[in-house]
Amino acid sequence: MVGYAFMGAAHSQAWRTAPRFFDLPLTPVMRVLGGRDAVAVKAAADRLGWQDTATSWQDLVAREDVDLVDVCTPGRTHAEIAVAALEAGKHVLCEKPLANTIEEAEAMVAAAEAAAVRGVRSMVGYTYRRVPAVQLARQLVADGRIGTVRHVRVQYLQDWLADPEAPLSWRLDKQAAGSGALGDIGSHAVDLAQFVTGERLTGVSAVLETFVHERPVAAEFAGLHGSSGPDAARGPVTVDDAAVFLARLSGGGLGVFEATRFATGRKNAIRLEVNGERGSLAFDFEDMNVLHFHDATEDATTAGFRRVVVTEPQHAYVAQWWPPGHGLGYEHAFTHQVVDLVGAIAAGEQPTPSFADGLAVQRVLDAVERSAADGSRWVALT
Amino acid sequence: MVGYAFMGAAHSQAWRTAPRFFDLPLTPVMRVLGGRDAVAVKAAADRLGWQDTATSWQDLVAREDVDLVDVCTPGRTHAEIAVAALEAGKHVLCEKPLANTIEEAEAMVAAAEAAAVRGVRSMVGYTYRRVPAVQLARQLVADGRIGTVRHVRVQYLQDWLADPEAPLSWRLDKQAAGSGALGDIGSHAVDLAQFVTGERLTGVSAVLETFVHERPVAAEFAGLHGSSGPDAARGPVTVDDAAVFLARLSGGGLGVFEATRFATGRKNAIRLEVNGERGSLAFDFEDMNVLHFHDATEDATTAGFRRVVVTEPQHAYVAQWWPPGHGLGYEHAFTHQVVDLVGAIAAGEQPTPSFADGLAVQRVLDAVERSAADGSRWVALT
Amino acid sequence: MVGYAFMGAAHSQAWRTAPRFFDLPLTPVMRVLGGRDAVAVKAAADRLGWQDTATSWQDLVAREDVDLVDVCTPGRTHAEIAVAALEAGKHVLCEKPLANTIEEAEAMVAAAEAAAVRGVRSMVGYTYRRVPAVQLARQLVADGRIGTVRHVRVQYLQDWLADPEAPLSWRLDKQAAGSGALGDIGSHAVDLAQFVTGERLTGVSAVLETFVHERPVAAEFAGLHGSSGPDAARGPVTVDDAAVFLARLSGGGLGVFEATRFATGRKNAIRLEVNGERGSLAFDFEDMNVLHFHDATEDATTAGFRRVVVTEPQHAYVAQWWPPGHGLGYEHAFTHQVVDLVGAIAAGEQPTPSFADGLAVQRVLDAVERSAADGSRWVALT
Amino acid sequence: MVGYAFMGAAHSQAWRTAPRFFDLPLTPVMRVLGGRDAVAVKAAADRLGWQDTATSWQDLVAREDVDLVDVCTPGRTHAEIAVAALEAGKHVLCEKPLANTIEEAEAMVAAAEAAAVRGVRSMVGYTYRRVPAVQLARQLVADGRIGTVRHVRVQYLQDWLADPEAPLSWRLDKQAAGSGALGDIGSHAVDLAQFVTGERLTGVSAVLETFVHERPVAAEFAGLHGSSGPDAARGPVTVDDAAVFLARLSGGGLGVFEATRFATGRKNAIRLEVNGERGSLAFDFEDMNVLHFHDATEDATTAGFRRVVVTEPQHAYVAQWWPPGHGLGYEHAFTHQVVDLVGAIAAGEQPTPSFADGLAVQRVLDAVERSAADGSRWVALT
Repeated sequence: MVGYAFMGAAHSQAWRTAPRFFDLPLTPVMRVLGGRDAVAVKAAADRLGWQDTATSWQDLVAREDVDLVDVCTPGRTHAEIAVAALEAGKHVLCEKPLANTIEEAEAMVAAAEAAAVRGVRSMVGYTYRRVPAVQLARQLVADGRIGTVRHVRVQYLQDWLADPEAPLSWRLDKQAAGSGALGDIGSHAVDLAQFVTGERLTGVSAVLETFVHERPVAAEFAGLHGSSGPDAARGPVTVDDAAVFLARLSGGGLGVFEATRFATGRKNAIRLEVNGERGSLAFDFEDMNVLHFHDATEDATTAGFRRVVVTEPQHAYVAQWWPPGHGLGYEHAFTHQVVDLVGAIAAGEQPTPSFADGLAVQRVLDAVERSAADGSRWVALT
Repeated sequence: MVGYAFMGAAHSQAWRTAPRFFDLPLTPVMRVLGGRDAVAVKAAADRLGWQDTATSWQDLVAREDVDLVDVCTPGRTHAEIAVAALEAGKHVLCEKPLANTIEEAEAMVAAAEAAAVRGVRSMVGYTYRRVPAVQLARQLVADGRIGTVRHVRVQYLQDWLADPEAPLSWRLDKQAAGSGALGDIGSHAVDLAQFVTGERLTGVSAVLETFVHERPVAAEFAGLHGSSGPDAARGPVTVDDAAVFLARLSGGGLGVFEATRFATGRKNAIRLEVNGERGSLAFDFEDMNVLHFHDATEDATTAGFRRVVVTEPQHAYVAQWWPPGHGLGYEHAFTHQVVDLVGAIAAGEQPTPSFADGLAVQRVLDAVERSAADGSRWVALT
Repeated sequence: MVGYAFMGAAHSQAWRTAPRFFDLPLTPVMRVLGGRDAVAVKAAADRLGWQDTATSWQDLVAREDVDLVDVCTPGRTHAEIAVAALEAGKHVLCEKPLANTIEEAEAMVAAAEAAAVRGVRSMVGYTYRRVPAVQLARQLVADGRIGTVRHVRVQYLQDWLADPEAPLSWRLDKQAAGSGALGDIGSHAVDLAQFVTGERLTGVSAVLETFVHERPVAAEFAGLHGSSGPDAARGPVTVDDAAVFLARLSGGGLGVFEATRFATGRKNAIRLEVNGERGSLAFDFEDMNVLHFHDATEDATTAGFRRVVVTEPQHAYVAQWWPPGHGLGYEHAFTHQVVDLVGAIAAGEQPTPSFADGLAVQRVLDAVERSAADGSRWVALT
Repeated sequence: MVGYAFMGAAHSQAWRTAPRFFDLPLTPVMRVLGGRDAVAVKAAADRLGWQDTATSWQDLVAREDVDLVDVCTPGRTHAEIAVAALEAGKHVLCEKPLANTIEEAEAMVAAAEAAAVRGVRSMVGYTYRRVPAVQLARQLVADGRIGTVRHVRVQYLQDWLADPEAPLSWRLDKQAAGSGALGDIGSHAVDLAQFVTGERLTGVSAVLETFVHERPVAAEFAGLHGSSGPDAARGPVTVDDAAVFLARLSGGGLGVFEATRFATGRKNAIRLEVNGERGSLAFDFEDMNVLHFHDATEDATTAGFRRVVVTEPQHAYVAQWWPPGHGLGYEHAFTHQVVDLVGAIAAGEQPTPSFADGLAVQRVLDAVERSAADGSRWVALT
């Protein structure tokens, strides 16, 4: 695994936990953790449970005892590492967004397709797909329970930048992060909508906004800007604070998307509502074990949104965990990701979401940026 | 009062109830009910409690014993009746949307301004403003409790057209209704956003959609289309089924709006969420006596959206009704409308929302239509 | 009508509104309002819309132009007025609780039964039965949708006494009010449980508690205690502040009841949950237009509590009001009460809840008091 | 660890996970898993991650390389194992309920106190205490934020026996389980109430009920009853299906408790509401990352129950997990239990809840049984 910050901890817990609750056809071994700072990566490896460390990702990728590379680094390094790993014959799990540019993402897809011919697998980490309630949503749509989709509204709301004095970080730097709320959380919104509906976005009209243009530079970040003296106090925000966009779906429905870090009081609220001709679905990650489902074919006297507590043995992944009513948490979806990835590798099948699925999301993000830059005009996706 | 359908019933109940619960400076007398069909209007007058009837609005407007004309007819007749009434020196309460075209609305504003000079008052019926929870939302914004507004998201969701076999009605005919979901319910969404934030929308990017292009012609509606023979079975829908649009607010925030009659399971869900720099507000008309308020200046340990049950004597209008916890219903807002209108007339003041406020909403709707017709390009509002 | 405080206002609005929305077989005329203070009762009659006034209930009952007496006075006067009215051949609507003692209630039932022989009707005002969501709950139980009832839990939670410095009122005086939370709101809890389940309570075990034994005497109340001097400042609370009791139902289920004025933050929260062998129901008056219904016979994959918005034309009373999603408020149940009472009178049928139903509630309250006074031992109801 | 069913899996995950997220002063090693069936325990050890196995708990307790014994067996074996382990100088973590009888529990407390003198620690597994939202509830009460406690209502609702054809299991056998819903889940309700309020129950009045007296015998359970022939089809339920009881708290408040396996649609709903003189708290395990808090000292205009999402770094345990809004699941509380236990051992302090705390819960359960057996009469707890 390369990277050991927030995502690294989540992935490590998943690799460690998956074989304890699920019957995996292959047994993962947590071999090497990669990071640039030798001392820090050693401490992280001890803490997270990796056997060895590497201070260059190239070394890690080259190791014979490594069969799979899990890429948990910032987006701008994804392409280089993932392509090299695939070419070295390692399966790759790559965190989202797939890449910071369309070009990089296309290169990754090409590498993934070439590798697949040799039986080498790749997957991109849109983990929210593997929340059991989201799986149920997908299943209900696929089973025709809500009929033709008319509306999708997805909001990914956070608030950690609502305070204008919140400090700069690499996530606010266009060079490092590619984009702001759009790529970081808007990408999840797009993937979720496409996954649950089983459709693709066919065009968008967008507005991007940066509400706060300068922020205090945190001490540890000051170096990045190479600044000193009085001006060192503040640095520019070069990415979007919020992204809002309209979309059409391949099935004819309308989508409304919103991704922001300025929704005061909403910490990690991923909300999806889908209205179909025969029913509706609603999900909010703040209550992640629940899916609301309305079946419009029922007698109007007792029809209503059902609060389905998605903790029954019939629900995806749940039978391996706890009895009904004992909810799962954030990191369980990462364990499910490991389960699905290992299962696909053992079965010789392509896991999803593939790099091509990841590229499809990137194309939407790119269209959003182009629309926003051109007076919100409609940008079609082919 | 002219018109005695849904709105006529709500207005009648309001005129009858207001003096029983509120100390009005003037006592309303329900003098004349106007409608074209003499028999039907007489029956309605008996039922709704009007003393007399008129089969021509011109007669009604001309009566000396009428001081105020309450216009509850479909939108295309608003301008003619309202202007005539104002010119005849009658105060006017006009249902929303103000008119079907900008030109009509402008003529109404001109008439209203001319009448105001003579002490004749006019108001447009954006009643949801007078729900106590909405009043509290406005007050909290005005008091600076949520700081600079960053995001407004408003959804007005209904589902009575989700079934493609739901019949045609005048509301689906462009000639009669002007527009579909946009004018009927989208107008409320726009007014609510502008009222609560105290800001104006400065531009929009929009998509309008008609999902179902032909519907069965209900027997009573067949005449309108003058059709006969086998083709009589279905008629065209000539308005939008759904409207979605992005907006900017005069204070720099972003707005996302959605109005639809295809949100299966949502009967009359008017949802407003406002995120500001210091706090947030959320309202859903399906739980109309509640406002959710997040104060971000509180200690994070106990901060959270407060479910304020807006039934305390401190809340607008509430002291005249029931003790805390005894909620109000849909039509109470109409009673509050009468209270405010009569109060303004007695005080010689301009009631709000004025016709000018109604025109401002019309301009937004017009911009939405122009944007939608031109590839969602940004249309600025001046 | 006798009495013109909180209940008098609610009843007046109901008498005025019922014929405007419902097709009543008889047309109510609001003839005489009774009260002891001539000036106050005249002012109330003007405000509430009564044609005439009377300063003695005996005069009111004796009037030939009065066909029905609506008793909205405190509980200790119910028996005397209601019995006299029934004997005078007037139909009677009597507010709950039916009386302050079992003996009074029995006398009222005897009078009601004697009157019924002569076609004179009587009803007790357990209005919450007529909230559409409660009607739906009753219907679902009656239709066998939840099967054998296993559990009923009812809480009636208010908080207006949580502050120990809240002043004394007649409601805290045993002579005037009979009991405290038990009779005032616990009675509603018992009636609701019995109405929705269609069963009777067969025994109880109870605890009553007075948390605050002395309270400041409000100026207008001081006279009642005839006190003066320094001791006048505080007076004794002689009723219960809270009542909690266990019960068995005639069908074998268990009941848990709670009535309190010390549930800080709960203003008028009447919560009912019923668990049956095949399903469950949940209601909270703070969201009065909603009933939650779980159907356990459904596939576990999509089973869940349905949030039924009880505003469809199929729901009791609703078709006469507004379109779906336009909720009703507290006082609508009083209008429904008038509709049902007038309908029963015109049809020559016994309206429910009858005085006998009211007596059944009183017997439960009496058993609760006896159990609480005797170490919570079980008191059977025959 | 002895036992490897549901609780064994949860405890194993906790031992494995705690050192990966928390800085523990001692490093747990998962040495030996004990169970009677050699093959099954070996398979479980492999799956759950234990180094070695033992088929007798005596052997396990005697091992020198074991410092701590984690008892996850059914209740009737707790006393024997725990006392032996403590006498052998091993720290003990014992699942709840502490024991099946008061006598056993008293012996355990005696052993724990004797062991404590020698620095050997013991703890009972009331894990729900360690849900961050419950910790916050405790903290707010301890800080005086809700003032004197007036009401506690706790419901522990499950529905796995609502179907009368659900099969027998050891949990329905008095010999094996001691009691039914009362001991299994009612014990959690009591501990939660005492923990959050910091008070003790001083007396109870109770009703126990068995709704379904005979159930089908599942094949694997038939042997336990030694039955054969036609009668083998059904066996008796010898424990309570549901327990309801009233209580008083040491601070003068009232408690209402309910534990049932017949609350159709409620899977594992542990609901706690506490009303105090200055505020209230509400918690529902179905939404376990949330605490509702009402502060009655706030201005009534904006007072309301706050939905506190308990995922901030300030909240107990949370800083070691994920960013705000990324919720925890059921088993995280077990990890927190390990953290607190290991911390107390290293610090030479007594962890809580102690065996004495566990005995206090047992005494309440015993009083409930005695009250229920004696006509619900009040049973005081000294």
